[in-house]
Amino acid sequence: MIEVLPLAMVGGGPGSFIGPVHRMAAELDGRMRLVAGVFSSDPERSRAAAAAYAIDPTRVYPDYPTMFESERARADGVQVVSIATPNHLHLPIATAALASGVHVVSDKPATATLKEALALREAVRASDRVYALTYTYSGYPMIRRARDIVAAGELGPIRKIVVEYPQGWLSAAIERGGNRQAAWRVDPVQAGVGGCIGDIGVHAFHLAEYVSGERVSAFVADLRTMVPGRALDDDCNVLLRFAGGASGVLVASQVATGERNNLTLRIYGERKGLRWCHERADRLTLTTASGDTSVLHAGQGTDGAMFRLPPGHPEGFIEAFARIYADVAAAIAGKRELIGGVVPGIAAGVRSMRFVETAVAASHAGHGWTSFEEDAS
Amino acid sequence: MIEVLPLAMVGGGPGSFIGPVHRMAAELDGRMRLVAGVFSSDPERSRAAAAAYAIDPTRVYPDYPTMFESERARADGVQVVSIATPNHLHLPIATAALASGVHVVSDKPATATLKEALALREAVRASDRVYALTYTYSGYPMIRRARDIVAAGELGPIRKIVVEYPQGWLSAAIERGGNRQAAWRVDPVQAGVGGCIGDIGVHAFHLAEYVSGERVSAFVADLRTMVPGRALDDDCNVLLRFAGGASGVLVASQVATGERNNLTLRIYGERKGLRWCHERADRLTLTTASGDTSVLHAGQGTDGAMFRLPPGHPEGFIEAFARIYADVAAAIAGKRELIGGVVPGIAAGVRSMRFVETAVAASHAGHGWTSFEEDAS
Amino acid sequence: MIEVLPLAMVGGGPGSFIGPVHRMAAELDGRMRLVAGVFSSDPERSRAAAAAYAIDPTRVYPDYPTMFESERARADGVQVVSIATPNHLHLPIATAALASGVHVVSDKPATATLKEALALREAVRASDRVYALTYTYSGYPMIRRARDIVAAGELGPIRKIVVEYPQGWLSAAIERGGNRQAAWRVDPVQAGVGGCIGDIGVHAFHLAEYVSGERVSAFVADLRTMVPGRALDDDCNVLLRFAGGASGVLVASQVATGERNNLTLRIYGERKGLRWCHERADRLTLTTASGDTSVLHAGQGTDGAMFRLPPGHPEGFIEAFARIYADVAAAIAGKRELIGGVVPGIAAGVRSMRFVETAVAASHAGHGWTSFEEDAS
Amino acid sequence: MIEVLPLAMVGGGPGSFIGPVHRMAAELDGRMRLVAGVFSSDPERSRAAAAAYAIDPTRVYPDYPTMFESERARADGVQVVSIATPNHLHLPIATAALASGVHVVSDKPATATLKEALALREAVRASDRVYALTYTYSGYPMIRRARDIVAAGELGPIRKIVVEYPQGWLSAAIERGGNRQAAWRVDPVQAGVGGCIGDIGVHAFHLAEYVSGERVSAFVADLRTMVPGRALDDDCNVLLRFAGGASGVLVASQVATGERNNLTLRIYGERKGLRWCHERADRLTLTTASGDTSVLHAGQGTDGAMFRLPPGHPEGFIEAFARIYADVAAAIAGKRELIGGVVPGIAAGVRSMRFVETAVAASHAGHGWTSFEEDAS
Repeated sequence: MIEVLPLAMVGGGPGSFIGPVHRMAAELDGRMRLVAGVFSSDPERSRAAAAAYAIDPTRVYPDYPTMFESERARADGVQVVSIATPNHLHLPIATAALASGVHVVSDKPATATLKEALALREAVRASDRVYALTYTYSGYPMIRRARDIVAAGELGPIRKIVVEYPQGWLSAAIERGGNRQAAWRVDPVQAGVGGCIGDIGVHAFHLAEYVSGERVSAFVADLRTMVPGRALDDDCNVLLRFAGGASGVLVASQVATGERNNLTLRIYGERKGLRWCHERADRLTLTTASGDTSVLHAGQGTDGAMFRLPPGHPEGFIEAFARIYADVAAAIAGKRELIGGVVPGIAAGVRSMRFVETAVAASHAGHGWTSFEEDAS
Repeated sequence: MIEVLPLAMVGGGPGSFIGPVHRMAAELDGRMRLVAGVFSSDPERSRAAAAAYAIDPTRVYPDYPTMFESERARADGVQVVSIATPNHLHLPIATAALASGVHVVSDKPATATLKEALALREAVRASDRVYALTYTYSGYPMIRRARDIVAAGELGPIRKIVVEYPQGWLSAAIERGGNRQAAWRVDPVQAGVGGCIGDIGVHAFHLAEYVSGERVSAFVADLRTMVPGRALDDDCNVLLRFAGGASGVLVASQVATGERNNLTLRIYGERKGLRWCHERADRLTLTTASGDTSVLHAGQGTDGAMFRLPPGHPEGFIEAFARIYADVAAAIAGKRELIGGVVPGIAAGVRSMRFVETAVAASHAGHGWTSFEEDAS
Repeated sequence: MIEVLPLAMVGGGPGSFIGPVHRMAAELDGRMRLVAGVFSSDPERSRAAAAAYAIDPTRVYPDYPTMFESERARADGVQVVSIATPNHLHLPIATAALASGVHVVSDKPATATLKEALALREAVRASDRVYALTYTYSGYPMIRRARDIVAAGELGPIRKIVVEYPQGWLSAAIERGGNRQAAWRVDPVQAGVGGCIGDIGVHAFHLAEYVSGERVSAFVADLRTMVPGRALDDDCNVLLRFAGGASGVLVASQVATGERNNLTLRIYGERKGLRWCHERADRLTLTTASGDTSVLHAGQGTDGAMFRLPPGHPEGFIEAFARIYADVAAAIAGKRELIGGVVPGIAAGVRSMRFVETAVAASHAGHGWTSFEEDAS
Repeated sequence: MIEVLPLAMVGGGPGSFIGPVHRMAAELDGRMRLVAGVFSSDPERSRAAAAAYAIDPTRVYPDYPTMFESERARADGVQVVSIATPNHLHLPIATAALASGVHVVSDKPATATLKEALALREAVRASDRVYALTYTYSGYPMIRRARDIVAAGELGPIRKIVVEYPQGWLSAAIERGGNRQAAWRVDPVQAGVGGCIGDIGVHAFHLAEYVSGERVSAFVADLRTMVPGRALDDDCNVLLRFAGGASGVLVASQVATGERNNLTLRIYGERKGLRWCHERADRLTLTTASGDTSVLHAGQGTDGAMFRLPPGHPEGFIEAFARIYADVAAAIAGKRELIGGVVPGIAAGVRSMRFVETAVAASHAGHGWTSFEEDAS
């Protein structure tokens, strides 16, 4: 019988978008089960969430230190924790979990600041537990396949990378109208130094490097605040240069009115181009110099193992998220090489935070080209 | 705390496509949990499946009569069963479940023959348990929304309905190459009288009536067997007439080479037209006489309650399937009106089987227009 | 210097859609020039049209017999005539032209009735002049390429053909509101026996046979009149059987509210499927049993000679129409084999009229399967 | 009778892509006719082109000064000239034409350098003739409609503009393989200082300002040469800031392998977003904060006057080009306000050349933000 890992969650209480996603994703493939949690700093809200998750009330805790301590004492105590809080709590929770011997699946970004990310890296290195970051899009089968295609050299040397993450949901100041999702994201205390760049720009940044295998070596960032009264950026345009010689652009926005979540990646090599759009996540388009276009479909060909359904039966965001959880389960079971491989780990977290902080600083200073170093180990 | 209903499954063993879908869908919203089953008639295969599902080995049974009897004796015995077997077993399993006081979620079609469907209708009527049929596509939020739009009269009187279900996976005789999915579907003993018409034509038939609210009153069916050696149809074209005056076409095929699963529905009324394609299930397109087109997106507007994620975060087949399970859970908890309302019940099952049998017979006889009656109660 | 053929037009006066298209198409490639005409039976309207076309007023004639006679007397007299009138005038004009030694490019359908088409066939056979029918869609490069692909056997034996021509512009009775385009099309005197079937159903019928090379051998036609008060059909659904064993469906409608002109053809063979949509006329999609899809683009590969622009520079309806005119010019210059080959000629005209009349009669009679013979020579 | 203006062409000889387009576009609406020309500097090639254009051999000239002089002496001499040469010849030809009283339709860019553009501006100002630049995309009906929609304030204050012009045809060094189109474009002598930026970047730049009504006030340009051995850029990424406060990005490339010509413009305002893609030029998409999307189709609504066909009958590149010629004919006939209004004139030419030169210089210098002034009059 497969082992079903007992899972805790911190955050993800009433009104949370990503909490339920973590729960559904963790349980989808039957390898983990949510059994404990601290779903809110407000005990009443926490209990309400627990009831909705059908969690045993005795395993709903007032705070995460208490949870990790109590669970450790149980034979069936949690082995993994999902962190679904605002960014500023990621570091202390992850550190406490690792110290308690609990594996960590953290929502992105890794932390609220680079300094925190570096501290977390120390904690991860000092631990033998798994630390994984849910850069969700890395869990889509066609993104994995795209990565393999690039790695196999099918595109030839990479020349250009265009990555875009357009959203429009913050085009009005809904944070002042009681929208909880908006409120913490535009608050520097909870979100950290990055607004749009930290919330979705990091997804775009990560995806570009994840699929292409190329590394950003310099950039010019133009981060703007379009909705008056916000302290953080809500719109970003970034010119990119890659160490391997490619040029690129990263466009992210939360004020692209009417856009939903159509993260789009295009990579052009000497021989072929590649295109993936989140709106049609089951497809991957390859373009050739001779002009004909190939469309690959999820569930066909080599990605069969990653797809749960026959071709033409769409899998979505939850399924992609679940791919990361399935990989984490496999990593816990021994395949540690998955972490930092197909599954983003702390290195991706540190690199993303460095990107966010460098971009914010450079943009505020009005700098032109800013070099972007690899993280020293 | 929400109640989590203990669920059993019959069928869905190794190699099954739909068994794991039932499990994932049933558990997705946290209202049911798979705890027992008879996953195969082969005990070893059944145990292998149970291990993969992480089922307690003591709740894996050699046959479904034993299961229902044993579970009935437990305080925590199963309350619902998912039927994921070939069609010919649907009737006896469903009947046994109902007789044991277990609610039924059956894969489509209801049974292998109309006669069986009528017998099952008697059993359902004699029971106070819920009986639901997983006409999956009825669980998509945009299909529910389309249904509401039509019901509200937004399209005006309906004039034309075109429904298509093209697949290509049976364009070669893969049933002779060991494909288990193909093997039972082309076998009259397991599949019943309908091949393509019974496997996917019923989905198309159901969806057309489900969304439009119109009822087929006559048709001309042309069912063909394109791959030599098959006993059942693998390709169907049907002219439709609806009681309300609309005309229509139903096209289904398993030999449309290269097609995956792009079930498509178009309904044209006097004022507007409506289009939905499974390949872009999160969208619903409305066309107007003045020419401009509106595209509605899942997660926005009135369907918010049915969608689990923010707009632009695709939900797929599993999530649609799970919508039916969530509705079944609500029906079991008291909202019985959902069954036969938004959730297909035995009436839909009988009607679909009557359509299959009438179409098969009329096509074989080379008939022209064949009238299609409402089912007498 | 290339020869520029002097061209006349009959019909195409003020308010005409297709008259200006014939003019633009004939002149696009610089091989013909409109110099004379009878643009309306109303002399004033005819003169107005001539002025808009910049035609020498002395070459605007009161009727076509006068025109053919007068032009014949000129050294630079017209050598070709475009017929852009309502259907009932096609036969007498074409006959008169041929009798005067003038080549004919006729708008479709060939005539208003089958009897007329057969008479026209006699006239064409008795003449050494070119007779071409503007089944426009046969002029699209990707349709020609699709035809070549099928002819080369790339799809394997053909199993299924689905052709659709959805329009919505007649979903209200605009013919009663002064719309001239609508008025003659719904009038049996001017349009002939077919409404939708004769106006656009013939395009679909012709295209299906033209690309597939298959021949319809039997059908069930369901022609309906959805807008009360019309004498002719405005909506058609037809089941098809082809002599080579394929099944098929033809769907055409003028009351598919909100549809513009998205003629769509799908052909499925044993090895591959093929799809073309008028809305993206520059593309041709090939689907394979292994699942990957290829998209071919106009201007690339073997169709380069048919496309006037580099790939990605869209050509449209006028350019497709012009392809037929270019071929007619080539046929006049000696390549007579083009007519009845890639360019539809009188045989296509007779066959289409037989289809229209047979379908109308069979539908009115409520017939089931009706056999459809090849035209005796 | 409408007046048909006699037209000359310079350039556009054998192998030219744009010469035949100018001819087809000029003649499409029947307002101009090509009657004279200097199609190549090589007399034999020029005569060959003339024969293919069916030009009277006596009106094919060895050079443009001779042509303008000779034609001036004729009662039916040319009134308009199309300039379809490489960029370095635009200035002298345009100047000569204006000096001879001949209206000018010039292919873009205006000239090879900014200095030349300023000189041409003087010549245009000193003349009473029309000077128009074929920024082709400004001739698409849906681009005109988009411009009207923005001007009417429907989008609200503009926040973000993303314009992309991806091509892949120069991803290999085809200029060394005899491709004439490629050869002059990569040659600084014929093309001027800009490669990709001058060939297609200017289209993107012009379109962004043309539709949005916003003016670029600063930028960071990253122009690269990806194919070794080229003297000019073949890939461009540019961050944009607009005077009205919007941010933006311009991406253009000739080495985006497999891309054809999918010029794409997105404009986001406070209330709505707008999207247009050349691949589906007949459509305009409007997105709203509430989430629903509207798709407008050419030939419907207020753009009817600009579209020649019923909705759903695609018009393409030639038709868009012809819209500019039709407007030029109207301007010559008296509506001079069209030039510099919907039709790009010398001001657009000067501004584009300033953009090209400033971008090239700033990129070579590795500058960050570079301010971009309005042109002093």
